[in-house]
Amino acid sequence: MGRGSNLPRVGGFNRAVVLEAIRHSADGLTRAQLGRITGLAPQTVSNVTRELLNQQLIRETGSVPPGGRGRPGVALSLNPSGGLAVGIHIDPSALGIAVVDLTGEIVAENYGPLPSPQDATAAIAHLHHEVERMVQEASVPRGRLLGIGVAAPGPIDDDAGTVSPPLLPGWGTVPLRDLLARQTGLDVVLDKDVTAVAKAHLWTGESPDPADFLVFYLGAGAAISPVIAGQVVRGTTGNAGETMHLPGDPLSASPRGRILGTSLGERELVAHARELGMTLPGEVDSWNPHEIEEGFTDLLVRAGRGEATAIEVFASAGRVLGAAVLAVAELLDISAIVITGPRWAAMRPLCEPELQHAIADHTLHGQPRPLNLHTSSLGERAGTVGAACLVLDRLFSPTPATLLIGS
Amino acid sequence: MGRGSNLPRVGGFNRAVVLEAIRHSADGLTRAQLGRITGLAPQTVSNVTRELLNQQLIRETGSVPPGGRGRPGVALSLNPSGGLAVGIHIDPSALGIAVVDLTGEIVAENYGPLPSPQDATAAIAHLHHEVERMVQEASVPRGRLLGIGVAAPGPIDDDAGTVSPPLLPGWGTVPLRDLLARQTGLDVVLDKDVTAVAKAHLWTGESPDPADFLVFYLGAGAAISPVIAGQVVRGTTGNAGETMHLPGDPLSASPRGRILGTSLGERELVAHARELGMTLPGEVDSWNPHEIEEGFTDLLVRAGRGEATAIEVFASAGRVLGAAVLAVAELLDISAIVITGPRWAAMRPLCEPELQHAIADHTLHGQPRPLNLHTSSLGERAGTVGAACLVLDRLFSPTPATLLIGS
Repeated sequence: MGRGSNLPRVGGFNRAVVLEAIRHSADGLTRAQLGRITGLAPQTVSNVTRELLNQQLIRETGSVPPGGRGRPGVALSLNPSGGLAVGIHIDPSALGIAVVDLTGEIVAENYGPLPSPQDATAAIAHLHHEVERMVQEASVPRGRLLGIGVAAPGPIDDDAGTVSPPLLPGWGTVPLRDLLARQTGLDVVLDKDVTAVAKAHLWTGESPDPADFLVFYLGAGAAISPVIAGQVVRGTTGNAGETMHLPGDPLSASPRGRILGTSLGERELVAHARELGMTLPGEVDSWNPHEIEEGFTDLLVRAGRGEATAIEVFASAGRVLGAAVLAVAELLDISAIVITGPRWAAMRPLCEPELQHAIADHTLHGQPRPLNLHTSSLGERAGTVGAACLVLDRLFSPTPATLLIGS
Repeated sequence: MGRGSNLPRVGGFNRAVVLEAIRHSADGLTRAQLGRITGLAPQTVSNVTRELLNQQLIRETGSVPPGGRGRPGVALSLNPSGGLAVGIHIDPSALGIAVVDLTGEIVAENYGPLPSPQDATAAIAHLHHEVERMVQEASVPRGRLLGIGVAAPGPIDDDAGTVSPPLLPGWGTVPLRDLLARQTGLDVVLDKDVTAVAKAHLWTGESPDPADFLVFYLGAGAAISPVIAGQVVRGTTGNAGETMHLPGDPLSASPRGRILGTSLGERELVAHARELGMTLPGEVDSWNPHEIEEGFTDLLVRAGRGEATAIEVFASAGRVLGAAVLAVAELLDISAIVITGPRWAAMRPLCEPELQHAIADHTLHGQPRPLNLHTSSLGERAGTVGAACLVLDRLFSPTPATLLIGS
C-alpha cells in the first residue's frame, strides 16, 4: 500500500508477462504476436525476449507464417527444461516429492507414506536425502534447480517459515523452511497445501476459467482456495482456505453434521459412519493418521460394495460439498469450481449425485447463475505439483503488486 | 490478464499514489516526505504534485519543519472541495442522496422513503430532480462535480449498467446507469450496495485494518463484502457479497434457520418472529417493503420492551451473524470485521451478546486467532457515502491493475 512504481519495476513485470504469454501458447509466438497480446512496444518485446533467450527460459523453434501481410516470424517457445523446481507435499498420512519443469510437467516423482510422522527432525532429514537422490537419478543439472516448494498442512507462520500441523501432533512447531534450506542449500518456499494446489491449477491452466475459480481440496481434511483475478487468496497470515465453519449437510440432524469442519475430512467421515452404527477398523476418535486412513479405506470399500449406511455417509458428504460450493460461489461471485485432492477420485462417484443435485439449476434472486464444476486431472499429484509451482510462481508470475517500488 | 505495462500507465498510477498519501496524512506532507512514503524519485514527486496543484486537487498549506537536517518544506494537503461527488443509495424502503467532498465528508444530504417504488421511470426522474436541487442549494460549482455514484440492491449487470432488484418487483430490469447519465449529463458509476459500503470504509479509513477487512451490511437484506489487499472483491460479474447459503443459527431446529439467507434480512426476521407465534403488523409473506418495514419496526420495539420472543429472534440473529463471521473470516484469513448498515444501530444491543459469545476466544487448530469486531460510525450513511466513493475511487484510487496496458 502506498508505494509508487517506476521503470525497473515495469521491466521485471513485463519479462514475466512475456514469459507467461509464451507459456500459454500451444506452438510458440512470434515477437509481433507477443506485441499484440501484451500491448508492449516492439522494442520492449525485443529487449525482453533477448533476455529470456539468454537465460535459456525460452528458445527459437522455427518460423510461423504471418497472420496477415508481412514476412514469417520466428516462433518463440518455452524451453521446458530451462529451469526445474522441486515440489514436496507433506500430508499427515502421505509424502509426495516431484521434480517439475517450467511447464509444470513432472520429470521425476516419488510417493509414499510420511516416514517418522512423530519426529520432524527425522522427517526433514528424509526429505533432504530423497530430494538429493531424485535430482541425481533424474540427472538434473544443479544449476538449473530453481528451488524447493513445500506444501504443508496449516497453520503456517509465514514470517517464521514454521508449520504446526494439528494432525502431526509429534511435530509441534517446526522451522521447516529454514531447516530444509540449510540442509539442501536451495531456496525454499513454504505455503499451505491448498494454496499450493490452487497455484498448480493456475500454472497448468487446469480450470474452466483461467483467472477466477475456487479450488476444493479433499485430502486428510477439506480446504477451499479462492483464486481472484489470477491471484490465489492467501489471507493476511497465509492461512486462508479454512472451512471449519462453512455450512454442513442441510439434512443433518446432529450438531456434528451442521458445519463442514466436523463433517467432511477423513476423520470426520469415519466418525459419521460410526455415529450411524458402522464398526470400522482403528480406534474410535484416534488422531493417528494411519488408523484414520485404515477406517476411511474400509468405509470406501464398503460403500463401493453397496452397503447402505456407508453410501449414506458419502451422500451426506456430497450435500456438504454442495452447500459449501453454493455458499462460497455466491459470496465471491465465482462460477468455476475445481474439485481435486487424493480423496476425490474415490469419493466422486459416491458424492457426485447429491453434489450435482445441490447445485443444479442454480439461481440467485430468481435469475439463473450456472455453476461450472470441474474435476482436476492433477488428482493426487495436485499437492506435489502445486508445491513445485510455488517456486515457479514466485519467480515467473506477473503479479501487478510486484510493480510497486519496494515490493 | 496478459497485458504488460508502460510509462503512461505508471504516470497515472503514481498520481493516484501521491494523492492517496496526501489524503491519508493528518497535516499534509512535504515533497520529501512524499518521496519517502511512495518510493518515488524527487523529480517524479515534483512533476506529479505540480499536476495535482494545477487540477486544484491539492493545495500548499504552510511549511513543515524538517525531520532531520535541511530547510523546512512546503506542506501539501488535500483540497477537500477540489472535487465533489454525488452519492445515491437506493434501498427498497429508503432513498439517500448526498454530496461529498474529496475526503468523503458530507456537504449536503437528504434521506427519505423511496418514492414510487413500483415505477422505475418516476423514481429516476425524482433522483434527477433531487440531485439538481441539492447541488444548487449547496452552491456546488458544476465544474467541480466529478460524477454520480449509485449504490443499488443486486443483482446488477455490470456491462449493461442495469439493476433488477427482487425487492422492487415493479422495476423489472432497469438501465439505471445510462438513464441517469442522460438526464443529469454527469458520469454515473453503478455498483452493488454492499460494494459501495465497502468502498466507503476503504476511502474513509474506518476499519481496524486499512487493507484487509470484511464488511457486514445489514439493511433490508444482509450482505458481506470482503476487502483484500485494499481492493473490494466485486466478483466476476460485480455481484459478490451474497450470503444466501452461508450458515444460519447453529441452534435452529427449522430449515429456515439453517441458512443465513432465510434468517437474517428484515423480511426473514419478521417471518421468524411469526414462526415463534408473534403477531406483527403487515400481511404475512408480503414483499411490500413498507409492510416489511412496519412489521420489523414493531418487532424491534417489542424486543426493546423486553418481550421474550422478540428478544429470542434477535438473539438468534446474533448467532447467525457469529456463524457467518467465523465462516468467512476463517475462509479468507481476515480478522478485522466491520458491521454497519441502517439496521445495525437498533439491532446491535439485541444481537451483540450472542455474536460476541460466538466469536470470543476464537481458535483455529488449537491456536488463538482473535477476531476484531468494529461498529462503523458511518451507520445508515454508509450506503450513500459509499455511492459517492464509487466515483472518487474510480478517479483517484491507486489500483495496481490500472498499471496494465489497455485496462
